[in-house]
Amino acid sequence: MSDMSAANLVLVRHGQSQWNLENRFTGWIDVPLTKQGEAEAHSAGQQIREAGIEFDAAWTSVLKRAIHTLWIILDGLDASWLPVHRDWRLNERHYGGLQGLNKAETAALHGDQQVHIWRRSYDVPPPLLTDDHPEHPRFDRRYRAVPAQALPAAESLRLTLERVLPCWESAIAPALQSGQRLLIAAHGNSIRAIVKHLESISDEDIPQLNIPTGMPLAYSLDRDMNVIERGYLAGEAAAAEAAAAVAAQGQATQSASAVS
Amino acid sequence: MSDMSAANLVLVRHGQSQWNLENRFTGWIDVPLTKQGEAEAHSAGQQIREAGIEFDAAWTSVLKRAIHTLWIILDGLDASWLPVHRDWRLNERHYGGLQGLNKAETAALHGDQQVHIWRRSYDVPPPLLTDDHPEHPRFDRRYRAVPAQALPAAESLRLTLERVLPCWESAIAPALQSGQRLLIAAHGNSIRAIVKHLESISDEDIPQLNIPTGMPLAYSLDRDMNVIERGYLAGEAAAAEAAAAVAAQGQATQSASAVS
Repeated sequence: MSDMSAANLVLVRHGQSQWNLENRFTGWIDVPLTKQGEAEAHSAGQQIREAGIEFDAAWTSVLKRAIHTLWIILDGLDASWLPVHRDWRLNERHYGGLQGLNKAETAALHGDQQVHIWRRSYDVPPPLLTDDHPEHPRFDRRYRAVPAQALPAAESLRLTLERVLPCWESAIAPALQSGQRLLIAAHGNSIRAIVKHLESISDEDIPQLNIPTGMPLAYSLDRDMNVIERGYLAGEAAAAEAAAAVAAQGQATQSASAVS
Repeated sequence: MSDMSAANLVLVRHGQSQWNLENRFTGWIDVPLTKQGEAEAHSAGQQIREAGIEFDAAWTSVLKRAIHTLWIILDGLDASWLPVHRDWRLNERHYGGLQGLNKAETAALHGDQQVHIWRRSYDVPPPLLTDDHPEHPRFDRRYRAVPAQALPAAESLRLTLERVLPCWESAIAPALQSGQRLLIAAHGNSIRAIVKHLESISDEDIPQLNIPTGMPLAYSLDRDMNVIERGYLAGEAAAAEAAAAVAAQGQATQSASAVS
Protein backbone atom coordinates (compact mmCIF):
# COMPACT_ATOMS: atom_id res chain seq x y z
CA MET A 1 0.00 0.00 0.00
CA SER A 2 0.99 3.64 -0.17
CA ASP A 3 2.97 5.29 2.61
CA MET A 4 0.73 5.66 5.66
CA SER A 5 3.39 6.94 8.06
CA ALA A 6 1.43 10.23 8.35
CA ALA A 7 -1.73 8.42 9.50
CA ASN A 8 -3.31 10.03 12.55
CA LEU A 9 -5.75 7.25 13.40
CA VAL A 10 -5.19 3.50 13.49
CA LEU A 11 -7.92 1.02 14.41
CA VAL A 12 -7.14 -2.56 15.49
CA ARG A 13 -9.70 -5.26 16.21
CA HIS A 14 -8.50 -7.67 18.92
CA GLY A 15 -7.53 -11.17 17.87
CA GLN A 16 -8.84 -14.55 18.95
CA SER A 17 -10.28 -14.77 22.47
CA GLN A 18 -11.01 -17.91 24.44
CA TRP A 19 -14.67 -17.73 23.49
CA ASN A 20 -13.95 -17.02 19.82
CA LEU A 21 -12.09 -20.32 19.97
CA GLU A 22 -15.08 -22.00 21.63
CA ASN A 23 -17.43 -20.21 19.24
CA ARG A 24 -19.52 -18.61 22.00
CA PHE A 25 -21.25 -15.23 21.92
CA THR A 26 -18.98 -13.04 24.04
CA GLY A 27 -20.22 -9.45 24.05
CA TRP A 28 -19.43 -7.85 27.39
CA ILE A 29 -18.16 -11.05 29.04
CA ASP A 30 -14.54 -10.36 29.91
CA VAL A 31 -12.72 -13.33 28.38
CA PRO A 32 -8.95 -13.37 27.76
CA LEU A 33 -7.04 -13.61 24.48
CA THR A 34 -5.77 -17.02 23.41
CA LYS A 35 -2.10 -17.50 22.46
CA GLN A 36 -3.19 -17.01 18.86
CA GLY A 37 -4.91 -13.76 19.83
CA GLU A 38 -1.70 -12.57 21.46
CA ALA A 39 0.24 -13.50 18.33
CA GLU A 40 -2.21 -11.46 16.23
CA ALA A 41 -1.58 -8.47 18.49
CA HIS A 42 2.19 -8.90 18.12
CA SER A 43 1.76 -8.94 14.36
CA ALA A 44 -0.37 -5.79 14.48
CA GLY A 45 2.33 -4.01 16.48
CA GLN A 46 4.97 -5.10 14.01
CA GLN A 47 2.95 -3.79 11.06
CA ILE A 48 2.52 -0.41 12.76
CA ARG A 49 6.21 -0.21 13.63
CA GLU A 50 7.22 -1.09 10.08
CA ALA A 51 4.84 1.55 8.73
CA GLY A 52 6.62 4.14 10.89
CA ILE A 53 3.44 5.42 12.52
CA GLU A 54 3.75 7.21 15.88
CA PHE A 55 1.00 7.95 18.36
CA ASP A 56 0.30 10.50 21.06
CA ALA A 57 -2.35 8.52 22.92
CA ALA A 58 -4.33 5.29 22.77
CA TRP A 59 -7.95 4.33 23.36
CA THR A 60 -9.49 1.04 24.24
CA SER A 61 -12.54 -0.56 25.85
CA VAL A 62 -12.86 -1.88 29.41
CA LEU A 63 -12.64 -5.50 28.20
CA LYS A 64 -9.33 -7.31 28.61
CA ARG A 65 -9.16 -8.85 25.13
CA ALA A 66 -8.94 -5.31 23.68
CA ILE A 67 -6.81 -3.91 26.52
CA HIS A 68 -4.27 -6.74 26.30
CA THR A 69 -4.16 -6.37 22.52
CA LEU A 70 -3.28 -2.72 23.10
CA TRP A 71 -0.63 -3.60 25.71
CA ILE A 72 1.08 -6.01 23.32
CA ILE A 73 1.03 -3.44 20.51
CA LEU A 74 2.35 -0.65 22.77
CA ASP A 75 5.18 -2.85 24.00
CA GLY A 76 5.99 -3.75 20.39
CA LEU A 77 6.17 -0.05 19.55
CA ASP A 78 8.33 0.62 22.64
CA ALA A 79 5.59 3.04 23.65
CA SER A 80 4.17 1.54 26.84
CA TRP A 81 4.38 5.09 28.24
CA LEU A 82 1.62 6.43 25.95
CA PRO A 83 -1.48 7.72 27.77
CA VAL A 84 -4.27 5.12 27.51
CA HIS A 85 -7.95 5.97 27.77
CA ARG A 86 -10.28 3.09 28.65
CA ASP A 87 -13.90 3.80 27.74
CA TRP A 88 -16.83 1.39 28.16
CA ARG A 89 -18.44 2.93 25.07
CA LEU A 90 -15.78 1.20 22.94
CA ASN A 91 -16.92 -2.21 24.23
CA GLU A 92 -18.16 -4.94 21.91
CA ARG A 93 -21.88 -5.09 21.11
CA HIS A 94 -23.80 -6.41 24.14
CA TYR A 95 -25.27 -9.76 23.13
CA GLY A 96 -27.74 -9.93 26.02
CA GLY A 97 -29.18 -13.38 26.60
CA LEU A 98 -26.98 -14.92 23.89
CA GLN A 99 -23.78 -14.26 25.83
CA GLY A 100 -22.07 -17.52 26.74
CA LEU A 101 -24.11 -19.64 24.31
CA ASN A 102 -22.32 -21.59 21.61
CA LYS A 103 -23.61 -22.31 18.11
CA ALA A 104 -25.51 -25.47 19.00
CA GLU A 105 -27.07 -23.99 22.12
CA THR A 106 -28.18 -20.84 20.30
CA ALA A 107 -29.77 -22.78 17.44
CA ALA A 108 -31.49 -25.17 19.85
CA LEU A 109 -32.92 -22.33 21.89
CA HIS A 110 -33.90 -19.89 19.15
CA GLY A 111 -33.82 -21.63 15.76
CA ASP A 112 -31.60 -20.95 12.75
CA GLN A 113 -34.01 -18.42 11.24
CA GLN A 114 -33.93 -16.17 14.32
CA VAL A 115 -30.14 -16.44 14.62
CA HIS A 116 -29.85 -15.34 11.00
CA ILE A 117 -31.98 -12.26 11.73
CA TRP A 118 -29.84 -11.30 14.73
CA ARG A 119 -26.76 -11.80 12.66
CA ARG A 120 -27.72 -9.80 9.60
CA SER A 121 -30.07 -7.09 10.84
CA TYR A 122 -29.11 -3.59 11.85
CA ASP A 123 -32.00 -2.96 14.21
CA VAL A 124 -32.97 -6.20 15.96
CA PRO A 125 -31.41 -6.72 19.40
CA PRO A 126 -30.96 -10.18 20.88
CA PRO A 127 -32.97 -11.16 23.99
CA LEU A 128 -32.52 -8.72 26.88
CA LEU A 129 -30.80 -9.76 30.08
CA THR A 130 -33.25 -9.43 32.93
CA ASP A 131 -32.48 -6.69 35.45
CA ASP A 132 -31.55 -9.25 38.09
CA HIS A 133 -29.36 -11.36 35.80
CA PRO A 134 -25.94 -11.74 37.47
CA GLU A 135 -24.26 -10.77 34.20
CA HIS A 136 -26.18 -7.50 33.91
CA PRO A 137 -23.56 -4.75 33.70
CA ARG A 138 -25.14 -2.91 36.62
CA PHE A 139 -23.60 -5.55 38.92
CA ASP A 140 -20.10 -5.01 37.50
CA ARG A 141 -18.15 -2.35 39.37
CA ARG A 142 -16.28 -1.24 36.26
CA TYR A 143 -19.58 0.37 35.12
CA ARG A 144 -20.39 1.95 38.47
CA ALA A 145 -19.89 5.48 37.18
CA VAL A 146 -22.17 4.89 34.17
CA PRO A 147 -25.78 6.08 34.58
CA ALA A 148 -28.02 3.01 35.03
CA GLN A 149 -30.26 3.94 32.08
CA ALA A 150 -27.21 4.07 29.77
CA LEU A 151 -26.17 0.47 30.52
CA PRO A 152 -27.42 -1.98 27.90
CA ALA A 153 -29.07 -5.35 28.61
CA ALA A 154 -28.68 -6.28 24.90
CA GLU A 155 -27.82 -4.26 21.80
CA SER A 156 -28.64 -4.28 18.12
CA LEU A 157 -25.86 -3.05 15.85
CA ARG A 158 -27.71 0.29 15.74
CA LEU A 159 -27.75 0.59 19.54
CA THR A 160 -24.04 -0.26 19.62
CA LEU A 161 -23.29 2.55 17.18
CA GLU A 162 -25.44 4.94 19.15
CA ARG A 163 -23.31 4.53 22.26
CA VAL A 164 -19.96 4.44 20.42
CA LEU A 165 -20.53 7.70 18.56
CA PRO A 166 -20.85 9.95 21.64
CA CYS A 167 -17.40 8.68 22.69
CA TRP A 168 -16.11 9.53 19.22
CA GLU A 169 -17.73 12.97 19.15
CA SER A 170 -16.96 14.04 22.71
CA ALA A 171 -13.51 12.56 23.25
CA ILE A 172 -11.75 10.95 20.29
CA ALA A 173 -12.53 13.43 17.48
CA PRO A 174 -11.58 16.45 19.65
CA ALA A 175 -8.23 14.78 20.46
CA LEU A 176 -7.61 14.21 16.73
CA GLN A 177 -8.61 17.79 16.02
CA SER A 178 -6.09 19.01 18.58
CA GLY A 179 -3.41 17.29 16.51
CA GLN A 180 -3.03 14.04 18.43
CA ARG A 181 -2.35 10.80 16.56
CA LEU A 182 -4.41 8.00 18.06
CA LEU A 183 -4.37 4.23 18.25
CA ILE A 184 -7.66 2.49 19.06
CA ALA A 185 -7.72 -1.19 20.04
CA ALA A 186 -11.31 -2.36 20.21
CA HIS A 187 -13.92 -4.82 18.95
CA GLY A 188 -15.59 -5.83 15.71
CA ASN A 189 -18.72 -3.79 16.28
CA SER A 190 -17.26 -0.73 18.01
CA ILE A 191 -14.77 -0.46 15.13
CA ARG A 192 -17.64 -0.92 12.66
CA ALA A 193 -19.31 2.06 14.30
CA ILE A 194 -16.28 4.28 13.77
CA VAL A 195 -15.70 3.07 10.20
CA LYS A 196 -19.39 3.57 9.34
CA HIS A 197 -19.22 7.11 10.66
CA LEU A 198 -15.94 8.02 8.93
CA GLU A 199 -16.81 6.43 5.58
CA SER A 200 -20.56 7.19 5.56
CA ILE A 201 -21.57 3.55 5.14
CA SER A 202 -25.32 2.98 5.03
CA ASP A 203 -27.37 1.16 7.67
CA GLU A 204 -28.09 -1.50 5.03
CA ASP A 205 -24.45 -2.11 4.14
CA ILE A 206 -22.81 -1.98 7.57
CA PRO A 207 -23.88 -5.48 8.78
CA GLN A 208 -21.97 -6.92 5.80
CA LEU A 209 -18.73 -5.08 6.65
CA ASN A 210 -16.32 -7.54 8.26
CA ILE A 211 -13.33 -6.08 10.08
CA PRO A 212 -10.39 -8.52 10.07
CA THR A 213 -8.75 -9.21 13.44
CA GLY A 214 -5.24 -7.98 14.27
CA MET A 215 -4.95 -5.95 11.05
CA PRO A 216 -4.28 -2.26 11.63
CA LEU A 217 -6.56 0.00 9.58
CA ALA A 218 -4.92 3.41 9.15
CA TYR A 219 -6.59 6.74 8.36
CA SER A 220 -5.28 10.14 7.50
CA LEU A 221 -8.01 12.54 8.57
CA ASP A 222 -8.15 16.27 8.11
CA ARG A 223 -9.26 18.60 10.91
CA ASP A 224 -12.87 18.28 9.77
CA MET A 225 -12.58 14.50 10.07
CA ASN A 226 -12.73 13.96 6.32
CA VAL A 227 -10.85 10.87 5.15
CA ILE A 228 -7.81 11.93 3.10
CA GLU A 229 -6.48 8.41 2.85
CA ARG A 230 -7.23 5.03 4.40
CA GLY A 231 -5.87 1.54 4.14
CA TYR A 232 -4.94 -1.68 5.89
CA LEU A 233 -1.23 -1.71 6.68
CA ALA A 234 -1.06 -5.34 5.51
CA GLY A 235 -2.54 -4.29 2.17
CA GLU A 236 -6.11 -4.50 0.91
CA ALA A 237 -5.77 -8.01 -0.52
CA ALA A 238 -4.57 -9.54 2.74
CA ALA A 239 -7.25 -7.65 4.69
CA ALA A 240 -10.01 -8.73 2.31
CA GLU A 241 -8.87 -12.32 2.61
CA ALA A 242 -8.87 -12.14 6.40
CA ALA A 243 -12.27 -10.41 6.41
CA ALA A 244 -13.65 -13.13 4.14
CA ALA A 245 -12.35 -15.71 6.60
CA VAL A 246 -14.23 -13.93 9.42
CA ALA A 247 -17.37 -13.90 7.28
CA ALA A 248 -16.93 -17.56 6.29
CA GLN A 249 -16.53 -18.51 9.93
CA GLY A 250 -19.84 -16.77 10.62
CA GLN A 251 -21.45 -18.55 7.68
CA ALA A 252 -20.28 -21.94 8.77
CA THR A 253 -21.51 -21.44 12.31
CA GLN A 254 -24.67 -19.51 11.46
CA SER A 255 -23.33 -16.77 13.66
CA ALA A 256 -20.76 -14.20 12.59
CA SER A 257 -21.55 -12.63 15.94
CA ALA A 258 -20.07 -15.61 17.70
CA VAL A 259 -16.61 -14.33 16.86
CA SER A 260 -17.32 -11.08 18.73
CA MET B 1 -0.10 -9.10 59.44
CA SER B 2 -3.47 -7.66 60.36
CA ASP B 3 -6.31 -7.41 57.87
CA MET B 4 -5.46 -4.75 55.30
CA SER B 5 -8.44 -5.33 53.01
CA ALA B 6 -9.62 -1.78 53.77
CA ALA B 7 -6.33 -0.25 52.58
CA ASN B 8 -6.84 2.69 50.24
CA LEU B 9 -3.25 2.98 49.00
CA VAL B 10 -0.85 0.25 47.91
CA LEU B 11 2.70 0.96 46.74
CA VAL B 12 4.72 -1.56 44.71
CA ARG B 13 8.32 -1.17 43.66
CA HIS B 14 9.03 -2.89 40.31
CA GLY B 15 11.09 -6.03 40.33
CA GLN B 16 14.35 -6.89 38.59
CA SER B 17 15.07 -5.09 35.33
CA GLN B 18 17.66 -6.00 32.74
CA TRP B 19 20.07 -3.40 34.12
CA ASN B 20 19.47 -4.40 37.74
CA LEU B 21 20.68 -7.79 36.58
CA GLU B 22 23.73 -6.23 34.91
CA ASN B 23 24.20 -3.94 37.92
CA ARG B 24 24.08 -0.73 35.89
CA PHE B 25 22.71 2.65 36.99
CA THR B 26 19.36 2.85 35.24
CA GLY B 27 17.50 6.01 36.28
CA TRP B 28 15.42 7.23 33.35
CA ILE B 29 16.76 4.70 30.83
CA ASP B 30 13.75 2.65 29.75
CA VAL B 31 14.95 -0.92 30.28
CA PRO B 32 12.58 -3.90 30.43
CA LEU B 33 11.86 -6.27 33.30
CA THR B 34 13.67 -9.60 33.36
CA LYS B 35 11.73 -12.85 33.72
CA GLN B 36 12.50 -12.64 37.43
CA GLY B 37 11.10 -9.10 37.52
CA GLU B 38 7.92 -10.35 35.85
CA ALA B 39 7.68 -13.14 38.43
CA GLU B 40 8.02 -10.57 41.22
CA ALA B 41 5.12 -8.62 39.72
CA HIS B 42 3.01 -11.79 39.53
CA SER B 43 3.75 -12.44 43.19
CA ALA B 44 2.78 -8.85 44.11
CA GLY B 45 -0.54 -9.26 42.31
CA GLN B 46 -1.19 -12.51 44.11
CA GLN B 47 -0.49 -10.93 47.51
CA ILE B 48 -2.92 -8.10 46.77
CA ARG B 49 -5.58 -10.51 45.56
CA GLU B 50 -5.20 -12.68 48.64
CA ALA B 51 -5.45 -9.60 50.87
CA GLY B 52 -8.80 -8.80 49.21
CA ILE B 53 -7.85 -5.21 48.34
CA GLU B 54 -9.76 -3.51 45.50
CA PHE B 55 -8.79 -0.39 43.62
CA ASP B 56 -10.53 2.38 41.73
CA ALA B 57 -7.51 3.58 39.75
CA ALA B 58 -3.79 3.01 39.33
CA TRP B 59 -0.76 5.24 38.94
CA THR B 60 2.63 4.57 37.45
CA SER B 61 5.63 6.27 35.85
CA VAL B 62 6.42 6.55 32.13
CA LEU B 63 9.09 3.83 32.38
CA LYS B 64 8.21 0.37 31.15
CA ARG B 65 9.64 -1.57 34.11
CA ALA B 66 7.03 0.09 36.35
CA ILE B 67 4.26 0.07 33.73
CA HIS B 68 4.72 -3.61 32.93
CA THR B 69 4.80 -4.41 36.66
CA LEU B 70 1.44 -2.65 36.90
CA TRP B 71 0.06 -4.53 33.87
CA ILE B 72 1.00 -7.89 35.38
CA ILE B 73 -0.57 -6.95 38.72
CA LEU B 74 -3.76 -5.64 37.09
CA ASP B 75 -4.12 -8.81 35.04
CA GLY B 76 -3.58 -10.87 38.20
CA LEU B 77 -6.36 -8.90 39.90
CA ASP B 78 -8.62 -9.33 36.85
CA ALA B 79 -8.74 -5.54 36.80
CA SER B 80 -7.04 -4.61 33.50
CA TRP B 81 -9.99 -2.22 33.03
CA LEU B 82 -8.91 0.09 35.87
CA PRO B 83 -8.03 3.64 34.79
CA VAL B 84 -4.24 4.04 34.72
CA HIS B 85 -2.47 7.37 35.10
CA ARG B 86 1.09 7.52 33.81
CA ASP B 87 3.06 10.43 35.27
CA TRP B 88 6.73 11.22 34.60
CA ARG B 89 6.99 12.61 38.13
CA LEU B 90 6.77 9.04 39.46
CA ASN B 91 9.91 8.08 37.50
CA GLU B 92 13.02 6.74 39.19
CA ARG B 93 15.68 9.22 40.35
CA HIS B 94 17.57 10.58 37.33
CA TYR B 95 21.14 9.35 37.63
CA GLY B 96 22.59 11.79 35.10
CA GLY B 97 26.04 10.86 33.85
CA LEU B 98 26.03 7.60 35.83
CA GLN B 99 23.21 6.09 33.76
CA GLY B 100 24.40 3.03 31.89
CA LEU B 101 27.59 2.61 33.94
CA ASN B 102 28.19 -0.59 35.85
CA LYS B 103 29.95 -0.93 39.19
CA ALA B 104 33.45 -1.25 37.81
CA GLU B 105 33.03 1.59 35.32
CA THR B 106 31.63 3.92 37.97
CA ALA B 107 34.43 3.19 40.43
CA ALA B 108 37.08 3.55 37.74
CA LEU B 109 35.67 6.90 36.61
CA HIS B 110 34.80 8.47 39.94
CA GLY B 111 36.42 6.47 42.79
CA ASP B 112 34.79 4.48 45.58
CA GLN B 113 34.65 7.47 47.94
CA GLN B 114 32.61 9.58 45.54
CA VAL B 115 30.28 6.68 44.73
CA HIS B 116 29.67 6.22 48.45
CA ILE B 117 28.71 9.91 48.76
CA TRP B 118 26.25 9.67 45.85
CA ARG B 119 24.82 6.55 47.39
CA ARG B 120 24.30 7.75 50.92
CA SER B 121 23.71 11.50 50.66
CA TYR B 122 20.35 13.22 50.45
CA ASP B 123 21.53 16.34 48.68
CA VAL B 124 24.37 15.48 46.31
CA PRO B 125 23.35 14.86 42.68
CA PRO B 126 25.45 12.73 40.33
CA PRO B 127 27.17 14.41 37.32
CA LEU B 128 24.72 16.30 35.10
CA LEU B 129 24.00 15.16 31.58
CA THR B 130 25.03 17.90 29.18
CA ASP B 131 22.20 19.65 27.34
CA ASP B 132 23.21 18.03 24.06
CA HIS B 133 23.60 14.52 25.49
CA PRO B 134 21.43 12.15 23.40
CA GLU B 135 19.98 10.70 26.61
CA HIS B 136 18.87 14.09 27.91
CA PRO B 137 15.09 13.80 28.49
CA ARG B 138 14.44 16.83 26.32
CA PHE B 139 15.13 14.62 23.27
CA ASP B 140 12.59 12.00 24.39
CA ARG B 141 9.11 12.64 23.03
CA ARG B 142 7.40 11.20 26.09
CA TYR B 143 8.50 14.36 27.95
CA ARG B 144 7.48 16.78 25.21
CA ALA B 145 4.67 18.29 27.27
CA VAL B 146 6.95 18.86 30.28
CA PRO B 147 8.41 22.40 30.59
CA ALA B 148 12.12 22.26 29.66
CA GLN B 149 13.22 23.76 32.98
CA ALA B 150 11.38 21.00 34.87
CA LEU B 151 13.29 18.19 33.15
CA PRO B 152 16.24 16.96 35.21
CA ALA B 153 19.75 16.26 33.88
CA ALA B 154 20.60 14.47 37.18
CA GLU B 155 18.90 14.33 40.56
CA SER B 156 19.85 14.01 44.20
CA LEU B 157 17.36 12.15 46.37
CA ARG B 158 16.11 15.56 47.52
CA LEU B 159 15.49 16.72 43.94
CA THR B 160 13.66 13.45 43.23
CA LEU B 161 11.36 14.03 46.19
CA GLU B 162 10.77 17.62 45.14
CA ARG B 163 9.31 16.53 41.79
CA VAL B 164 7.40 13.52 43.14
CA LEU B 165 5.56 15.51 45.82
CA PRO B 166 3.74 17.91 43.44
CA CYS B 167 2.30 14.82 41.73
CA TRP B 168 1.21 13.52 45.12
CA GLU B 169 -0.26 16.85 46.24
CA SER B 170 -1.98 17.83 42.98
CA ALA B 171 -3.21 14.48 41.71
CA ILE B 172 -2.84 11.44 43.96
CA ALA B 173 -3.85 12.86 47.35
CA PRO B 174 -6.97 14.56 45.91
CA ALA B 175 -8.02 11.23 44.34
CA LEU B 176 -7.59 9.49 47.71
CA GLN B 177 -9.51 12.30 49.41
CA SER B 178 -12.35 11.82 46.94
CA GLY B 179 -12.63 8.24 48.20
CA GLN B 180 -10.66 6.41 45.52
CA ARG B 181 -8.50 3.42 46.45
CA LEU B 182 -5.22 3.59 44.53
CA LEU B 183 -2.47 1.27 43.42
CA ILE B 184 0.91 2.84 42.58
CA ALA B 185 3.56 0.85 40.73
CA ALA B 186 6.79 2.84 40.69
CA HIS B 187 10.48 2.93 41.59
CA GLY B 188 12.69 2.75 44.66
CA ASN B 189 13.17 6.48 44.96
CA SER B 190 9.73 7.72 43.88
CA ILE B 191 8.22 5.33 46.45
CA ARG B 192 10.73 6.55 49.03
CA ALA B 193 9.43 10.06 48.38
CA ILE B 194 5.83 9.05 49.10
CA VAL B 195 6.77 6.99 52.17
CA LYS B 196 8.93 9.83 53.54
CA HIS B 197 6.02 12.22 53.12
CA LEU B 198 3.38 9.92 54.64
CA GLU B 199 5.51 8.76 57.55
CA SER B 200 7.43 12.00 58.20
CA ILE B 201 10.84 10.38 57.81
CA SER B 202 13.75 12.80 58.20
CA ASP B 203 16.16 13.86 55.44
CA GLU B 204 18.90 12.08 57.39
CA ASP B 205 17.06 8.77 57.69
CA ILE B 206 15.50 8.47 54.24
CA PRO B 207 18.65 7.40 52.32
CA GLN B 208 18.81 4.34 54.62
CA LEU B 209 15.22 3.28 53.92
CA ASN B 210 15.28 0.38 51.46
CA ILE B 211 12.02 -0.49 49.74
CA PRO B 212 11.90 -4.19 48.81
CA THR B 213 10.96 -5.01 45.21
CA GLY B 214 7.65 -6.64 44.32
CA MET B 215 6.31 -6.40 47.88
CA PRO B 216 3.04 -4.46 48.16
CA LEU B 217 3.11 -1.87 50.96
CA ALA B 218 -0.46 -1.07 52.03
CA TYR B 219 -1.74 2.03 53.80
CA SER B 220 -5.05 2.96 55.33
CA LEU B 221 -5.15 6.74 55.21
CA ASP B 222 -7.79 9.06 56.60
CA ARG B 223 -9.11 12.01 54.59
CA ASP B 224 -6.34 14.23 56.02
CA MET B 225 -3.77 11.72 54.74
CA ASN B 226 -2.85 10.57 58.23
CA VAL B 227 -1.66 6.97 58.39
CA ILE B 228 -4.22 4.86 60.29
CA GLU B 229 -2.45 1.62 59.51
CA ARG B 230 0.40 0.47 57.27
CA GLY B 231 2.11 -2.78 56.50
CA TYR B 232 3.70 -5.03 53.92
CA LEU B 233 1.20 -7.62 52.74
CA ALA B 234 3.91 -10.29 52.92
CA GLY B 235 4.49 -9.36 56.58
CA GLU B 236 7.14 -7.15 58.14
CA ALA B 237 9.68 -9.94 58.60
CA ALA B 238 9.65 -10.98 54.93
CA ALA B 239 9.79 -7.33 53.85
CA ALA B 240 12.69 -6.55 56.19
CA GLU B 241 14.59 -9.55 54.86
CA ALA B 242 13.99 -8.48 51.26
CA ALA B 243 14.95 -4.88 52.08
CA ALA B 244 18.15 -6.11 53.74
CA ALA B 245 18.93 -8.06 50.58
CA VAL B 246 18.53 -4.86 48.54
CA ALA B 247 20.82 -3.04 50.97
CA ALA B 248 23.38 -5.86 50.91
CA GLN B 249 23.40 -5.86 47.14
CA GLY B 250 24.21 -2.15 47.33
CA GLN B 251 26.93 -2.79 49.91
CA ALA B 252 28.55 -5.51 47.84
CA THR B 253 28.62 -3.39 44.71
CA GLN B 254 29.34 -0.06 46.40
CA SER B 255 26.17 1.20 44.79
CA ALA B 256 22.69 0.63 46.18
CA SER B 257 21.64 2.98 43.44
CA ALA B 258 22.68 0.47 40.86
CA VAL B 259 19.53 -1.49 41.61
CA SER B 260 17.40 1.51 40.66
